[in-house]
Amino acid sequence: MSLFDPEELAAPAPAAPSGPLVRVRLLVAYDGRGFHGFAPNRPVRTVAGVLTEALEKWLGHPVVLTCAGRTDRGVHAWGQVVHFDTSVVDVDCEALRRSLIKMLGPAVVVRSAEVVDSSFDARRTAVGRRYRYTVLNRPVPDPFLAGLAWHVEEPLDVRAMQLACDPLIGEHDFSAFCRRPPVEGASMTRRVRRAEWVELGDGLLRFDIEASAFCHQMVRSLVGTLVAVGRGKKRAGDMAWILRSGDRQLAAQPAPPDGLVLWEVLYP
Amino acid sequence: MSLFDPEELAAPAPAAPSGPLVRVRLLVAYDGRGFHGFAPNRPVRTVAGVLTEALEKWLGHPVVLTCAGRTDRGVHAWGQVVHFDTSVVDVDCEALRRSLIKMLGPAVVVRSAEVVDSSFDARRTAVGRRYRYTVLNRPVPDPFLAGLAWHVEEPLDVRAMQLACDPLIGEHDFSAFCRRPPVEGASMTRRVRRAEWVELGDGLLRFDIEASAFCHQMVRSLVGTLVAVGRGKKRAGDMAWILRSGDRQLAAQPAPPDGLVLWEVLYP
Repeated sequence: MSLFDPEELAAPAPAAPSGPLVRVRLLVAYDGRGFHGFAPNRPVRTVAGVLTEALEKWLGHPVVLTCAGRTDRGVHAWGQVVHFDTSVVDVDCEALRRSLIKMLGPAVVVRSAEVVDSSFDARRTAVGRRYRYTVLNRPVPDPFLAGLAWHVEEPLDVRAMQLACDPLIGEHDFSAFCRRPPVEGASMTRRVRRAEWVELGDGLLRFDIEASAFCHQMVRSLVGTLVAVGRGKKRAGDMAWILRSGDRQLAAQPAPPDGLVLWEVLYP
Repeated sequence: MSLFDPEELAAPAPAAPSGPLVRVRLLVAYDGRGFHGFAPNRPVRTVAGVLTEALEKWLGHPVVLTCAGRTDRGVHAWGQVVHFDTSVVDVDCEALRRSLIKMLGPAVVVRSAEVVDSSFDARRTAVGRRYRYTVLNRPVPDPFLAGLAWHVEEPLDVRAMQLACDPLIGEHDFSAFCRRPPVEGASMTRRVRRAEWVELGDGLLRFDIEASAFCHQMVRSLVGTLVAVGRGKKRAGDMAWILRSGDRQLAAQPAPPDGLVLWEVLYP
């Protein structure tokens, strides 16, 4: 249990609907601009808010969504996974998917919809999450990447940024790179399996990170600190002791949400 | 003269400012979403409108912009070229570029600014324009390409679309693919040097076209008809006689503006 996001575990369990139910899993991509994050938060516009509303309209009954990873305001997803239960036992998933694309497009795209076993839980059975963060590292910005990448003008030392990733691999307490969890005493231990910078050319840098789960703002906090290393404000060797310190004051400011995408959720 | 856009020639000549003047050339990229096209058109928001306002604020005198190609509402540019004259004879182009990026970002990015000889004219000395049009050809759309590509669900026959490009190469009257010009009797003859579809993978198709100049909506009209060929609604062999007919009714509806980018302007 300690490997899962305490924020996620703290969320109220979905109200149990009665009668025969079918569980549906959706794979959802969204452009986070224009949304106050994923989680429902009335009266502001959230991804879960518009998705729930569309599902309820289509199915004709209240829907409680469970998601794999709640993204913050302005953060995007390519592979968000959600599940919900419906009493429409003969639900036509392909028709549902097409209707949702029409109702929610173009900012939210349901990439697939399928009936799954009731043991599937988008949040609790996920064994890993992959995030991508894009940095545009060149003097001149790109209007087509506004809101989709962090524009950093000064040249970054990508080799140092990659070196600084080494101490992240493995199981660690990531308190230094997380916002305080809402649950008192919740574990901040996460297992990072991969953390890698990829140079795509033309100044585009992509950070790929995979972990069992993530604490709140963990990727943005890591990217902020790694970019500080790339800028020469911190050394690659600093990463290990910042991590060990558990002190959020030693990490750099979190990177902006623009460049962050929940890329993929992994299940057994 | 016949090779240039009659719309462009019909525009009023810039008012001649007095005193010693310096001509400045800007290379401008913009995301066309949120703009009613390039050309000034008060009270609506246009790229030339916001650029002129920013330049006048920075330079402290009225500015008349001349551009290489006026793009329509929702059409983008990576390499739009504009020029203007200023009485600030010692203008610091790099400071100007940086200020414009701050004032106009993130949707409009001035990629470069330089003083040029007064014989340079962004519109009249251009010898070619390159446009790119992006089609996303797969069942599921992509939220990050909304407004930047035309989503076409049904599989397209790209080979037929490429074959249909052959008759476009060379000097032709493109009346069948153009909106009526505002100047009576203006020539619709243009020289197309290149017209090519490139498959980028994952259903992404890019159409690259280079010509001396373009008539109004010519690229969108060509793409609309080429996609009709790809859908099997028209045959590749139809392209030659639609072109010869000069009849706009025989071409397909213009493709949406979303996928279109003024990519580059060529000078001697």
